[in-house]
Amino acid sequence: MADQSPKLTRIGLAGLAVMGQNLALNIAEKGFPISVYNRTTSKVDETTERAKAEGNLPVFGFHDPESFVQSIQKPRVIIMLVKAGAPVDQTIKTLSAYMEKGDCIIDGGNEWYENTERREKAMTELGLLYLGMGVSGGEEGARNGPSLMPGGSFEAYKYIEDIVLKVAAQVPDSGPCVTYIGKGGSGNFVKMIHNGIEYGDMQLIAEAYDVLKSVGKLSNEELKNVFSEWNRGELQSFLIEITADIFGIKDDKGDGYLVDKVLDKTGMKGTGKWTVQQELSVAAPTIEASLDSRFLSGLKEERTEAAKVFKSGGFGDILADQVVDKEKLIDDVRKALYASKICSYAQGMNLIRAKSIEKGWDLKLGELARIWKGGCIIRAIFLDRIKKAYDRNPDLANLLVDPEFAKEIIDRQSAWRRVVCLAINSGISTPGMSASLAYFDTYRRERLPANLVQAQRDYFGAHTYERVDIPGSFHTEWFKIAKKKNN
Amino acid sequence: MADQSPKLTRIGLAGLAVMGQNLALNIAEKGFPISVYNRTTSKVDETTERAKAEGNLPVFGFHDPESFVQSIQKPRVIIMLVKAGAPVDQTIKTLSAYMEKGDCIIDGGNEWYENTERREKAMTELGLLYLGMGVSGGEEGARNGPSLMPGGSFEAYKYIEDIVLKVAAQVPDSGPCVTYIGKGGSGNFVKMIHNGIEYGDMQLIAEAYDVLKSVGKLSNEELKNVFSEWNRGELQSFLIEITADIFGIKDDKGDGYLVDKVLDKTGMKGTGKWTVQQELSVAAPTIEASLDSRFLSGLKEERTEAAKVFKSGGFGDILADQVVDKEKLIDDVRKALYASKICSYAQGMNLIRAKSIEKGWDLKLGELARIWKGGCIIRAIFLDRIKKAYDRNPDLANLLVDPEFAKEIIDRQSAWRRVVCLAINSGISTPGMSASLAYFDTYRRERLPANLVQAQRDYFGAHTYERVDIPGSFHTEWFKIAKKKNN
Repeated sequence: MADQSPKLTRIGLAGLAVMGQNLALNIAEKGFPISVYNRTTSKVDETTERAKAEGNLPVFGFHDPESFVQSIQKPRVIIMLVKAGAPVDQTIKTLSAYMEKGDCIIDGGNEWYENTERREKAMTELGLLYLGMGVSGGEEGARNGPSLMPGGSFEAYKYIEDIVLKVAAQVPDSGPCVTYIGKGGSGNFVKMIHNGIEYGDMQLIAEAYDVLKSVGKLSNEELKNVFSEWNRGELQSFLIEITADIFGIKDDKGDGYLVDKVLDKTGMKGTGKWTVQQELSVAAPTIEASLDSRFLSGLKEERTEAAKVFKSGGFGDILADQVVDKEKLIDDVRKALYASKICSYAQGMNLIRAKSIEKGWDLKLGELARIWKGGCIIRAIFLDRIKKAYDRNPDLANLLVDPEFAKEIIDRQSAWRRVVCLAINSGISTPGMSASLAYFDTYRRERLPANLVQAQRDYFGAHTYERVDIPGSFHTEWFKIAKKKNN
Repeated sequence: MADQSPKLTRIGLAGLAVMGQNLALNIAEKGFPISVYNRTTSKVDETTERAKAEGNLPVFGFHDPESFVQSIQKPRVIIMLVKAGAPVDQTIKTLSAYMEKGDCIIDGGNEWYENTERREKAMTELGLLYLGMGVSGGEEGARNGPSLMPGGSFEAYKYIEDIVLKVAAQVPDSGPCVTYIGKGGSGNFVKMIHNGIEYGDMQLIAEAYDVLKSVGKLSNEELKNVFSEWNRGELQSFLIEITADIFGIKDDKGDGYLVDKVLDKTGMKGTGKWTVQQELSVAAPTIEASLDSRFLSGLKEERTEAAKVFKSGGFGDILADQVVDKEKLIDDVRKALYASKICSYAQGMNLIRAKSIEKGWDLKLGELARIWKGGCIIRAIFLDRIKKAYDRNPDLANLLVDPEFAKEIIDRQSAWRRVVCLAINSGISTPGMSASLAYFDTYRRERLPANLVQAQRDYFGAHTYERVDIPGSFHTEWFKIAKKKNN
């Protein structure tokens, strides 16, 4: 029951919520006739109407799955954009009933990578191909050019390569923001870490805002100017740009600026949390701090009560005592934000590498930085420097020790320490910047106090320890020696 | 094939590695004849020989599972102390083949709580009872009195109550360190959080050590005295006590003190990691920082390389510049450690409460603090204050806002801020103390910069926001307004 059916379309898309609709229109606009389907059929008509209104784009709607599947040329490719988990399984079941050997299903949602691997295996048994493709960029990106992270069957990727190369965001000098990520669930995993990094960026920006506003007493107009200015330098990025925009917007329901009326409770979806929950033994304190800050932001009522308890303890007055040089503070905060950001990306990249090694995915970190340069929420000029760092040395142990980044950090370290201490002495929390700084100071330290922890573990649990001077594994009867000595 | 079989024993224990052997001897010593079994039979003989040597304790060894099971009085109770995961399933399979309706198996290992719940369900179908019992205290605790955290079937708990009340550590004025935790996997969950708290304690102590040694230039002898002194006050605890012991022990393989020869690489088992991986939306930054520090400690070679990279950047000299008042520093560090510790326990307790609510376990937080007062690694005088806080108010939202703890923090906050800033300016990392301080400063803040994060989310993802002044959910076309304004 298509409106104006062609012979056969090039591709299909199932799941027409915001992301699905926009991606379908994007694909059609790039010259690929597309079939669309949604269980709630009103969404199908909504999409075809939008397609008509946005320039008679070749979008063909279907109200039943069978005619939807049969409208697509073979081998058929169908992108799903439905909620992660059970809805994905349900959609696969519905569609695969009508699909044939060699056809392909692509999950474009934020799915846990192991679910994708499970499904790919099940599909292979049916003779079908499968991809898990991270799609970043929100509504706007999906419509005009997202960053795409397809992982799974390489053969399936080849079916859609011509499409994704045109549909993805195009960045001058570095090409379309898409590449074949790797096997299995790698596309989902990389998208998950992208989201974790996004959490980190947003938290660090919020902390910069907090220090400038609460300690520096900057007005929204000043904040707008500072972030606009920052967006012309090393911090240039989508998130800094929209932050500047936000500070400029007046409240249409009352006096003053809208940002001041927004409740300080942050919502979240699953992927940031997944980033922290993954089982790799890789430190990611900045990303964890950003997640914890979202959790604590949710406890608005508790915080209000706690503020009362500690007001009487003299904490309310800490801020009033500060005298600061605004220009110097702005400069310091910019440097602290940038240095903290390097640490956050170093963590994210190392999470990806660790999983890549574990799974044998052979992911190219520099190439990931490249496809994040456009289309996605973390797009930034900064990613180009990350790409270059991995071009210089694909085996770089940590972004921090890349010569360029190391130099940038050295240049910013005093400012960074000043900002964090100023925040601490002002009673302001900068969990993300503090965690980044602690990460840096831990990573660059040849000798940590971990010897004591290991001695404690050997003391109470006979877990043994290594020595700095003699190879091997040692155990000491600490308790017996200490008691003999004390008696 | 028992050595000197009684009619029937009171209880059985399978899995005779260090923990199993010691717990069996402890049970026998308290007057309960016990049957023991191990797949590798030499361990069985080793245990019965130890039982003989340690006072002819009533321990009866068996080399095959059938006669082991049949040697126990009905309803039979068997404690397993084998590795978590597959070995537990295997042991259950072996033993349950010979067990009868109404018999009970207890897993005394560090098992993921959901595995315990799965097994309890499977056992119920066989008519058997099941408990997951956390056992803390290491080798020494198992032998002389551990802290026991049994969860699962209440009926099964009643079978062993007389035993565990005698076997657990006995603390004057607060009784045996055991209580029925709650249903399902609650015993394992509580033990897991206990271990996460233990990680936090150890990391905070290591940081205190680092600041005193690296900034304060304290010798091991001075450190020993400081920790011994601390062990007479508010910080009195097993971990502080053994830390003092450790600083006093000379290297038997060379000059100087052993602690300086221990490699600064910290090992770990699974439970600390699980604490961070759990899916609750509860901030636990101090525990996370302690885990991340262990991960980073493991990267010894990378750290050595990074130290070289940043030495040339002037970081090597930061420490040399510090002039500090030793007595004042020691006093400040003690206060910082104590305040940080409160935050860490607040996080652990709130993780437990969140899971308790989710699962309907109805756990009593004060009672948990009580059973941790003896036997286990985190045993401390401090736990008594936590118990009292929950006695005062069982619904306490956070330990931080208990009037006593709030006062203690207020008294210590200046010192705490001084220590963290001193560390930052010395290029020393104190990730745990910093994370605790950021937790405190975030929790006691009525207005966080989370409004900006929420505005960003609404800008790029139409995630909507709430307002401070009007109820409801709002969405703003930030992009359109900003672009109109800018043009």
